[in-house]
Amino acid sequence: MKPRLYYAPGTCALAAHAALREAGAEFDLELVSFADEQQRSPVFLAMNPLGRVPVLETEHGVLTENPAILAYIARAWPGSGLDSVGDLWVTAQVDSFNVFVGSSLHPAFAHLFRPYRYADGDEHRTAVSAKAPQVIGEMFDIVEARLGASSAAGPWVHGARFTTSDPYLCVMSRWGARTGVLKAERHPRVLAHLALVQARPSVAQALAAEGLTSI
Amino acid sequence: MKPRLYYAPGTCALAAHAALREAGAEFDLELVSFADEQQRSPVFLAMNPLGRVPVLETEHGVLTENPAILAYIARAWPGSGLDSVGDLWVTAQVDSFNVFVGSSLHPAFAHLFRPYRYADGDEHRTAVSAKAPQVIGEMFDIVEARLGASSAAGPWVHGARFTTSDPYLCVMSRWGARTGVLKAERHPRVLAHLALVQARPSVAQALAAEGLTSI
Repeated sequence: MKPRLYYAPGTCALAAHAALREAGAEFDLELVSFADEQQRSPVFLAMNPLGRVPVLETEHGVLTENPAILAYIARAWPGSGLDSVGDLWVTAQVDSFNVFVGSSLHPAFAHLFRPYRYADGDEHRTAVSAKAPQVIGEMFDIVEARLGASSAAGPWVHGARFTTSDPYLCVMSRWGARTGVLKAERHPRVLAHLALVQARPSVAQALAAEGLTSI
Repeated sequence: MKPRLYYAPGTCALAAHAALREAGAEFDLELVSFADEQQRSPVFLAMNPLGRVPVLETEHGVLTENPAILAYIARAWPGSGLDSVGDLWVTAQVDSFNVFVGSSLHPAFAHLFRPYRYADGDEHRTAVSAKAPQVIGEMFDIVEARLGASSAAGPWVHGARFTTSDPYLCVMSRWGARTGVLKAERHPRVLAHLALVQARPSVAQALAAEGLTSI
């Protein structure tokens, strides 16, 4: 069977979507309508009890958690250019960055977008949302410094080579630009990286397929 | 050079610590004193701008983010029994579970222990802490169901084989037991797993080396 990616437009599933295109994979794309709360349906919760996208259904079974999905895509299509499994250290660095995005940068946005997960009571939720831009900004400061350190080697997160970290960061940067947290004077490298990644054919095709445009 | 693990006792660095022992690695252990705020020192922040442990210093450079460190340890000592890199799907499942711990279960505890990260103002921080046990309980419900699904194959998170997911879950379960969120009637498999993992020689040795006892 072809792998099937469950996604919702503009969510972090866009990273896995672009990675599949970058890898040259044949795959099916399955929309999960958040408006209809399909992510809370019994069928979907049986695949991912967290009720979140992306979910990748493969011939082996169901895989959840974006950094794990991205690592799987990089390995399952060797020769795609995403695969760095032959290099233990490059693989570790890509894993590390993607886990940082998944456990720090993305959750910082979740506090902005979905404060009800973290506190009960309107006034407390407002306080959680209000704090989030500060944390998001600090997380992007870390990314900005990192892009500065790798920029001598090349334009991508890990230097000369495009990896799954690039579309994953791109999704976060799109949210950062849309919410106004990313600022040209504070995060110039992040914004330059965003423009570059959105122009990458695999990412541009994924955006178009999800009905989205570049930011 | 031997790898050097930066840790603080009882933090999630215990998972990487136990994994190194399980792999039979020679390594140095470097205490980061949270009481002295060493994790905020310029030297430490240069290694990990988030100011968190574990950090693994290797011959290649510095590696951060626990799921990435655990994956690296499993791969860097092939034949240790932790290495599943030859099996793409097992690797993906271990990655997925560890990322779930790092991005959902551990952050749920962070809201309980460190609410100041997520809101300003004492009353709002109290509200964040107050919500956390509910979320932690729900995350452990997911783990409980998963342990039920894999229990036919064996006692570990992924069935018959001990993986890095076992000490990583063990750290969370220790916190869950200590805070009283884990309850015998609701999470019997999680608590049985905790006891089993703490009795594993690599984990027992790591606990002893950190001056900790089983819970």
